[in-house]
Amino acid sequence: MSRISESTVRRLSHYYRVLEEVAAEGKRMISSHLLAEREGITSAQVRKDLSYFGSFGRRGLGYNVEHLRTEIRGILGLDRRWRVALVGAGHIGSALLAYRGFVDQGFDIVAVYDADPARIGTTVDGLVVQPISALPSAEAFDVGVIATPIRAAQEVADALVAAGARGILNFAPRKLRIPPDLALRTVDMTMEFESLSFALSKPDGPRRRRGRE
Amino acid sequence: MSRISESTVRRLSHYYRVLEEVAAEGKRMISSHLLAEREGITSAQVRKDLSYFGSFGRRGLGYNVEHLRTEIRGILGLDRRWRVALVGAGHIGSALLAYRGFVDQGFDIVAVYDADPARIGTTVDGLVVQPISALPSAEAFDVGVIATPIRAAQEVADALVAAGARGILNFAPRKLRIPPDLALRTVDMTMEFESLSFALSKPDGPRRRRGRE
Repeated sequence: MSRISESTVRRLSHYYRVLEEVAAEGKRMISSHLLAEREGITSAQVRKDLSYFGSFGRRGLGYNVEHLRTEIRGILGLDRRWRVALVGAGHIGSALLAYRGFVDQGFDIVAVYDADPARIGTTVDGLVVQPISALPSAEAFDVGVIATPIRAAQEVADALVAAGARGILNFAPRKLRIPPDLALRTVDMTMEFESLSFALSKPDGPRRRRGRE
Repeated sequence: MSRISESTVRRLSHYYRVLEEVAAEGKRMISSHLLAEREGITSAQVRKDLSYFGSFGRRGLGYNVEHLRTEIRGILGLDRRWRVALVGAGHIGSALLAYRGFVDQGFDIVAVYDADPARIGTTVDGLVVQPISALPSAEAFDVGVIATPIRAAQEVADALVAAGARGILNFAPRKLRIPPDLALRTVDMTMEFESLSFALSKPDGPRRRRGRE
């Protein structure tokens, strides 16, 4: 399973979420049918994905929830901790610091940087905000998070790469150039929000269904 | 411009972000070249997009920043406010309540719902958390935000639609079935985080570039 495609990773991610919920309900076994449910995945696809790493369900019984959960957890690297340098202590940076799901998935924010003199030296979530110029002498970290305005994003990406980042998580809504051997993932919430706002604003857009406007 | 494609909306969203930053820097004019910059968009594409709604740059001068900003703001519906019912006061719901960018883009969270008896009746960001069973008698709202576990998401989507939602913003990592005339947008941060974690964990994955591990 050395060459696992991005679409397989996304399906594993989905199975993991289902397994987490099923485990919380106290269930011990799960069928490929239930793992496939809701995502337009077939149960044959589930069996194929899971057979890749030697996990086989038992006919009529399905898969052992705890065993499968541990296996996928290992493959996705969710049993490890990643040290994160956050650049940008504004709206997105603050929300990310408040988001416990980030910690739950193994990401520990160990340092916060910002370009704004008004923010530098203040404390957010127990961390003192440092100037971006301090990045070259940063403590070792695995992932750099970019939560800056778009115009600063490429420069910050370059600084994070130079400071030793192995991966970049980009919340700035623009494309970034980074070395091809580094991992880059982008979350563009703003674009989804604006796309929704646009859809609601159209003259022929969705209308309220109940008459109490 | 009645039939504007999703990809055009995304480009407008990008132009708007550039205009916001350029305006903050006090610039009055902007070239199609600068609007195109960084996204693999050509300046010819920019001119075509903007000519659709009657905005034409002046050769050698470019576009008026303030005028263009106001126009795109109107098209994207960013000059309006949307009333939001948030379902799920857990990790994602709390982070969204903390995220000022959501307010800045016109979304006002006016009510919060949760299924967890331990959360119902508590106050988050000035709003009393209500049981999901109270949704049918909800105050009028435009957008329902789903920030629940995946297993509850479809049921909550149905309840939001029944309560009069015109749009759904889904943070639960699963596909949802909603009436086709409603707007649905999905933000799946978890999948990006797990995909990044996977990439970092691979035996042949990105390595630290500096020797101080």
